Amino acid sequence: MATPGPTSSPSNIRLAGARDLIHHRASHMKELMERINPKLKNIFQTKNDVYTISCSGTGGMEASVTNSFDKNDKVLVLSNGYFGERFRTICEHNALNTLVYEKEWGAEFSLAEVAEIYKENPDLKGVFVVFSETSTGMINPVKEIAALFKKTEVLVVVDAISGLIVNELLMDEWGLDIVIAASHKGFMMAPGLTFVGISDKAWSKIDQTNSSAYYFSFTRLKQFFPFASASASVSLLLSLEESLSMIEDIGSGTLLVQQKQIALAAQRALNALGFILFVDKPIYRSNAVTSALAPEGIDTQKLLSQLETEFNLSITGGQGIFKGKMIRVGHIGYIDELDLYAVFGAIERALIQLGAEFPLGVSSKAIQEVFVRGGK
Amino acid sequence: MATPGPTSSPSNIRLAGARDLIHHRASHMKELMERINPKLKNIFQTKNDVYTISCSGTGGMEASVTNSFDKNDKVLVLSNGYFGERFRTICEHNALNTLVYEKEWGAEFSLAEVAEIYKENPDLKGVFVVFSETSTGMINPVKEIAALFKKTEVLVVVDAISGLIVNELLMDEWGLDIVIAASHKGFMMAPGLTFVGISDKAWSKIDQTNSSAYYFSFTRLKQFFPFASASASVSLLLSLEESLSMIEDIGSGTLLVQQKQIALAAQRALNALGFILFVDKPIYRSNAVTSALAPEGIDTQKLLSQLETEFNLSITGGQGIFKGKMIRVGHIGYIDELDLYAVFGAIERALIQLGAEFPLGVSSKAIQEVFVRGGK
Amino acid sequence: MATPGPTSSPSNIRLAGARDLIHHRASHMKELMERINPKLKNIFQTKNDVYTISCSGTGGMEASVTNSFDKNDKVLVLSNGYFGERFRTICEHNALNTLVYEKEWGAEFSLAEVAEIYKENPDLKGVFVVFSETSTGMINPVKEIAALFKKTEVLVVVDAISGLIVNELLMDEWGLDIVIAASHKGFMMAPGLTFVGISDKAWSKIDQTNSSAYYFSFTRLKQFFPFASASASVSLLLSLEESLSMIEDIGSGTLLVQQKQIALAAQRALNALGFILFVDKPIYRSNAVTSALAPEGIDTQKLLSQLETEFNLSITGGQGIFKGKMIRVGHIGYIDELDLYAVFGAIERALIQLGAEFPLGVSSKAIQEVFVRGGK
Amino acid sequence: MATPGPTSSPSNIRLAGARDLIHHRASHMKELMERINPKLKNIFQTKNDVYTISCSGTGGMEASVTNSFDKNDKVLVLSNGYFGERFRTICEHNALNTLVYEKEWGAEFSLAEVAEIYKENPDLKGVFVVFSETSTGMINPVKEIAALFKKTEVLVVVDAISGLIVNELLMDEWGLDIVIAASHKGFMMAPGLTFVGISDKAWSKIDQTNSSAYYFSFTRLKQFFPFASASASVSLLLSLEESLSMIEDIGSGTLLVQQKQIALAAQRALNALGFILFVDKPIYRSNAVTSALAPEGIDTQKLLSQLETEFNLSITGGQGIFKGKMIRVGHIGYIDELDLYAVFGAIERALIQLGAEFPLGVSSKAIQEVFVRGGK
Repeated sequence: MATPGPTSSPSNIRLAGARDLIHHRASHMKELMERINPKLKNIFQTKNDVYTISCSGTGGMEASVTNSFDKNDKVLVLSNGYFGERFRTICEHNALNTLVYEKEWGAEFSLAEVAEIYKENPDLKGVFVVFSETSTGMINPVKEIAALFKKTEVLVVVDAISGLIVNELLMDEWGLDIVIAASHKGFMMAPGLTFVGISDKAWSKIDQTNSSAYYFSFTRLKQFFPFASASASVSLLLSLEESLSMIEDIGSGTLLVQQKQIALAAQRALNALGFILFVDKPIYRSNAVTSALAPEGIDTQKLLSQLETEFNLSITGGQGIFKGKMIRVGHIGYIDELDLYAVFGAIERALIQLGAEFPLGVSSKAIQEVFVRGGK
Repeated sequence: MATPGPTSSPSNIRLAGARDLIHHRASHMKELMERINPKLKNIFQTKNDVYTISCSGTGGMEASVTNSFDKNDKVLVLSNGYFGERFRTICEHNALNTLVYEKEWGAEFSLAEVAEIYKENPDLKGVFVVFSETSTGMINPVKEIAALFKKTEVLVVVDAISGLIVNELLMDEWGLDIVIAASHKGFMMAPGLTFVGISDKAWSKIDQTNSSAYYFSFTRLKQFFPFASASASVSLLLSLEESLSMIEDIGSGTLLVQQKQIALAAQRALNALGFILFVDKPIYRSNAVTSALAPEGIDTQKLLSQLETEFNLSITGGQGIFKGKMIRVGHIGYIDELDLYAVFGAIERALIQLGAEFPLGVSSKAIQEVFVRGGK
Repeated sequence: MATPGPTSSPSNIRLAGARDLIHHRASHMKELMERINPKLKNIFQTKNDVYTISCSGTGGMEASVTNSFDKNDKVLVLSNGYFGERFRTICEHNALNTLVYEKEWGAEFSLAEVAEIYKENPDLKGVFVVFSETSTGMINPVKEIAALFKKTEVLVVVDAISGLIVNELLMDEWGLDIVIAASHKGFMMAPGLTFVGISDKAWSKIDQTNSSAYYFSFTRLKQFFPFASASASVSLLLSLEESLSMIEDIGSGTLLVQQKQIALAAQRALNALGFILFVDKPIYRSNAVTSALAPEGIDTQKLLSQLETEFNLSITGGQGIFKGKMIRVGHIGYIDELDLYAVFGAIERALIQLGAEFPLGVSSKAIQEVFVRGGK
Repeated sequence: MATPGPTSSPSNIRLAGARDLIHHRASHMKELMERINPKLKNIFQTKNDVYTISCSGTGGMEASVTNSFDKNDKVLVLSNGYFGERFRTICEHNALNTLVYEKEWGAEFSLAEVAEIYKENPDLKGVFVVFSETSTGMINPVKEIAALFKKTEVLVVVDAISGLIVNELLMDEWGLDIVIAASHKGFMMAPGLTFVGISDKAWSKIDQTNSSAYYFSFTRLKQFFPFASASASVSLLLSLEESLSMIEDIGSGTLLVQQKQIALAAQRALNALGFILFVDKPIYRSNAVTSALAPEGIDTQKLLSQLETEFNLSITGGQGIFKGKMIRVGHIGYIDELDLYAVFGAIERALIQLGAEFPLGVSSKAIQEVFVRGGK
């Protein structure tokens, strides 16, 4: 699997989830959660507790909206991709007064324009932004955006679902108020758990909000902590502990360097095969996933189905308006240099079957060049 | 574990969840869901599709409220236990016009009174009832209650989370409109999946409802079916297939007979040890869990903590007002006659440590008497 | 499973064996073996390396013969059970000059007679004795027997396959020369690994022996150590590491006390049901397995097949001449007080089905009495 | 892992081995063996039962000697590699009158010479030959050799340990008398099980042989069949059933075609990197493993340790006299085209680190050329 998530999950993480269950209110569960929590806080780089909810990432996005904002609260959604749009939809569903700063998919936000919008809307209560936009492989400048609101009462809500772990994110230092992550991305697990970091500033707002949320209620999460506020997904929590230990063993610094190299190699390999990288500026390219437009004459639908049928390889296509024109190669989590040779070996072969022409082995060469030179 | 859920989970179900992940949008996932769905429909005894959501049962309860009713819709909650109360809370959270027909915990509802309430409130839009009330081990007469509303437009919403599989429930025949179940009860799995059956009548109402639900949106579930509307909990779905095969192999008829015997044996064993069964009439006792009040002088808190510490056995205590006075012995799912000997062997031993007096082996005798006579 | 082995194996031990394989000659394998070996030495209570062979226990018994003795070497086999007989058969197969000191099954050896035989056969090269005779549940006085030969050149070869871990054995202190154990007994694993401890005295003899053994060659085991001399059973070695950690965590002292209590409870429960314990003197009863003769009128074949068919419980019957007259209840490894209630609950039920009469719950009572009084 | 065995083992095969154990004498075990055996017979292409022994392949080689031949029986060992030498050693260890027809490693046997040796030694009792010689990657013409002895009383004993499944072998049709295979090669499992097929002709000889074998006794295997003659390696047998189902699902025809393509691609890739294939004639190259001599200036010890340390890839070096000069790339079992890209990507990278020069991506190109043209 080389998709932007779920990722392939290492054997030991999956096996940890097959151990004897423990009751979700028993003392063993408390101990488990107390081993898990400091590691989650370290990954989020926050001093506050990080909460775990049994749901996929979208549930966490919705929770950030329904817990923190009242109907008619004015919020700003920054949208330049599929998941930015999802934030907008959820805000509108909940009858927030939703401003949208919309850019074409893959286009950068202007910090000045964000500042300008705030100036014009001093009653703004929250800003929603996607860190690593899975639909385009773009990193949005969350740090810089948050800086604009650091001394204000505006909450900065960040979808870091595919971004966390593989791209640097410092929740407290950057002043992020709500950060959402999920198990099936950098954590190398199956989907089913969502993690939410919440700043003190966010808690103040949440405490004043008249939320109808029950299952997703942050207040209930806090009240039951370290237990879950409902029956916890025990098997996934057992896997999570193993995942967090693996990440700790590698070290977040090393992991970031490795992921950057892998992303770079994927980018070069796509270039070598005639694809055009969707995100122009290298600085905005996520280490989680690389999006690219297919060379002339290649139908990406056919390419992807060929990959799945003949090579048992799941790669995803474009979302929304890029369906059929784009491929998105995930390189998050449990993937290394050797996997890239395999993934691109398959892509080359499938392209040839579709009539593309290029020197055989050209992607393998591109990958090697990155690693031979240490990823420079 | 002898709790009302999560239950112990058989090795083969847990191992199935440790297999290589498949992508939640790939064709293998479609095939998996297409093998799962007919089996779920059979368990619910419904002709309509049964939807799977990544969350615990409470999420399903909330979804049944937020998808099907508009603010100010008048609904009736039947409450005689902890989970009836939860339905009330969720309805009130969502600003429904919530009538509550409240009985003491463990007390029966009067069908006549329910009919009377409806007569006085002809604008009623929904009735909420818990099938097997986990907090008391009571079965509510869902079939008879539903019969009152069969020819009306009132939706009958049933929390069958701990009740399904181990007690007979026929969704379509009984005219139930929304039925909620969860993975960690009769399915013998870890928590994390919730299942929702929805009648045609319910769909009509849902289609007219202006719901803010997103993650829990039934409409989105239908739209993406058989895929999930968000990243599916792949590992749990792999376990689910194994669980459904096991249940099919035993046969639902056989399973019901077995569960009834096991419940009866647990009841007799508790009696033998001086406990008073909380649910008076045998007909209202759930096969999922048996609640009982401790004999004079026994502090159930101490009893339960003794069981956990010394015997590594999780049994739960009373919820709400019965905290400290009640124990609840779960016998749902992966538990058989032999497990009962072990569970009650431990209970006897812990009781003796707390100073109780009774002839040693008395619970074992009670269990045997049930099985020797074939559970009559 | 309540057999004298294979025992039930805990989930975490089995899951450890499902991890990604490592190559049997790679550095990771070396590290694994270097973690395993000190723990094995500790269990054998020996300063010398303990060797692991991929085979079941019988292979280890044969290896002790073929590596250490030449054709026509005079050896003494102490036989009072099925596995004593096996030693005899293997010695004779290999054309050793085999003396047999034979006692009825379950009868004690006389140390004086052993000393006498040695006196009459000063050219004796080895003595073979079974520590815990699985066929009868008898412990033979290996310590005292070894003491007779401590200052001689006679090798004392001990089959400790079902005895080790659950009964005290101190290889070096007692002067045992070859000690054989296997994975599926006290190690709580699947069958497939055999462990052999070898004293310096034994090595001297082995070095002078002209053995035709190849796969079982001790010399080759030493030469390749810590690697195996052939392709190692990697999955079982991964499980072994987990098993050894569990044993270390419990502590061998605690484990011996627990096992003694469990054995005592099983003995009392069998008594209570009218069985006659096969091993008369408590001091000679193994903590691994209890053998007992069925009460008048009970066909043990029927009893055991009833237990397997109706209760999915494997208990073994008598071996050799005791086929049909004896049952052997294993209580080695992963079995605790609660399991005993389950096992004897099933035995009671099956006995009743066969027409036996006794007060119901009588075995549960007997077990409780042991544990209530702390196993005295 | 890309070694000639143990191979990487698929998740589902490993997980099958982690299931609850069953007792090795219980009826469930009988059923398991009765499901396994027809599939083993099909793989061996024999009408006779195939026996399973808990040991690694070497144990099976030794068993074929000790069960079938008496001391001083005249036998012929065909030796052109490490495992031919092993047959010789075992025969000599057992005091057979051992003739050796020795060729340089990798050199072909002459059928005429074999016939000649037989003519000169009409009292020959057995011929030993390795099918796929793992030390060189050479296939010996077992079919043609066996044809020479078909109408004689000479037993043809074949080590098919790494050869079976991935190269065509028809035991009965070719007239092979004893065929040995093992779990950690084409069966894609961990090591620990050996399989032995035995012809009627072989049984006649075995019945007349005065063997000292006990654990490895073929007669005992037959007597206990379908049970094992000692405690069976239950976990490995559970994995075996899964392995056999996978092989059956692919189909042996398809599997042979795939393996041939993979072997060809590995050969071309090695050529492309400047290696010289050790086995000259394509017809003699095994689909299990490819041996190649390193290009001038490359120290294979360094290469292999680089691969293990930096790329976590186990590849093996030359055995015996080829230590340090040869690498052996395994491509048996659970390996596909994509894995080859990964394996050779790593080899290229490690070679560059050691100073080799070649156009980057050249091995990837070579692999693709094979598959693009369908392996012609």
